[in-house]
Amino acid sequence: MSVEPEATTMSAAQRPGKIVAIGLNYAAHAAQVGRTTAGRPQIFFKAPSSVIGPGEVIVLPPESARVEHEAELGIVIGRRMRRVTGADALAGVAGYCCANDVSARDIQHAEGLPDYAKSFDTFCPLGPVVPASSVDVADLVVECLVNGEIRQRGRTSDMLYSVSDLLAYITTAMTLEPGDVVLTGTPAGTGPLAAGDTVTVRIGGVGSLTNPVVAATEASRPSSAC
Amino acid sequence: MSVEPEATTMSAAQRPGKIVAIGLNYAAHAAQVGRTTAGRPQIFFKAPSSVIGPGEVIVLPPESARVEHEAELGIVIGRRMRRVTGADALAGVAGYCCANDVSARDIQHAEGLPDYAKSFDTFCPLGPVVPASSVDVADLVVECLVNGEIRQRGRTSDMLYSVSDLLAYITTAMTLEPGDVVLTGTPAGTGPLAAGDTVTVRIGGVGSLTNPVVAATEASRPSSAC
Repeated sequence: MSVEPEATTMSAAQRPGKIVAIGLNYAAHAAQVGRTTAGRPQIFFKAPSSVIGPGEVIVLPPESARVEHEAELGIVIGRRMRRVTGADALAGVAGYCCANDVSARDIQHAEGLPDYAKSFDTFCPLGPVVPASSVDVADLVVECLVNGEIRQRGRTSDMLYSVSDLLAYITTAMTLEPGDVVLTGTPAGTGPLAAGDTVTVRIGGVGSLTNPVVAATEASRPSSAC
Repeated sequence: MSVEPEATTMSAAQRPGKIVAIGLNYAAHAAQVGRTTAGRPQIFFKAPSSVIGPGEVIVLPPESARVEHEAELGIVIGRRMRRVTGADALAGVAGYCCANDVSARDIQHAEGLPDYAKSFDTFCPLGPVVPASSVDVADLVVECLVNGEIRQRGRTSDMLYSVSDLLAYITTAMTLEPGDVVLTGTPAGTGPLAAGDTVTVRIGGVGSLTNPVVAATEASRPSSAC
């Protein structure tokens, strides 16, 4: 076990060194997409360049006909961690945040791998972050609302792998560093987003994350801002 | 198309903002592992925390019984790029490097996704980097040697997707930024590494990247260095 003493700032969540995400961590979502779990957490990464903050727009790319919302609890790492377990893992968490693991589902199926379809620019809304000490993540309600209507609703107590389980598994392989973010999987009810929608991830005790959804145009495409 | 004017330093390759990797970009390797390509590049990420430099040790984790070498040409991004194609894509490349996409193959098969098994600490040797202007990547010989014996040998002219193809596909989804690294896939001949081995990736016109391989022990595990 190794947890270094320095803590990170909350704002580090705006540009994580890496974003580690988990597939199929709620049995009901795995059933929804017709897949079984692998007997271990299924890990993938989202590109740090996909991160946006609360209120920023999610841009629907012309290449996808089906972009979906995935409400998730995010873990913001506070200390360098490698091969940590249990309470030692939790001691390295700086905070928790709302996250939306936005996914171009048609591209994900065509690719056969999730990373590309989940890493379009603007596909990782994150925030707000609350200090780990202020919330007990054992049984939080995780919801997604589209235009004010509840589309996803689950409880973190239904996660197949808990926060400390996930941190132990991830840090068996790789060092987690201050500012890294771990997404903990999405409950059932994922569904499409359309231009003009407003999508909100709401997590009890953490807060809510609202982003408008727009279609890519020559004017709004991130490419034009480069 | 958008390429920003600033260039990056070569040393940025030591800690990329993201490492974008490509599966099955040489038909002979796809045949070796008994898989077909998806009709588009298959993208995954390696964790930036897995990067080591020339001469540093690759640590075999106790969790894997089969860690393999994958010699690859790496692209070091020099300019911010989004939706770039052809010569515009190549103009955003700062340099090319040798890379070893080290993979815990048994864990990769158990996970069903590549990222975790390819992101153990020390699993991404990179370097040296040569300026893009100094090399024509159209037909380079890419080799892997274990203890001086050639195990992999391919030519970049056999890649299913060229450097500019890959940059166009990647930047359709996500912004590439200075220091990001793109790995271009491995030719046939991937095979196991054992403690005590020395593995070298050698690319004509680029150079060679040699790393000793050690077993994890309490003393050598990266955890102890945290």
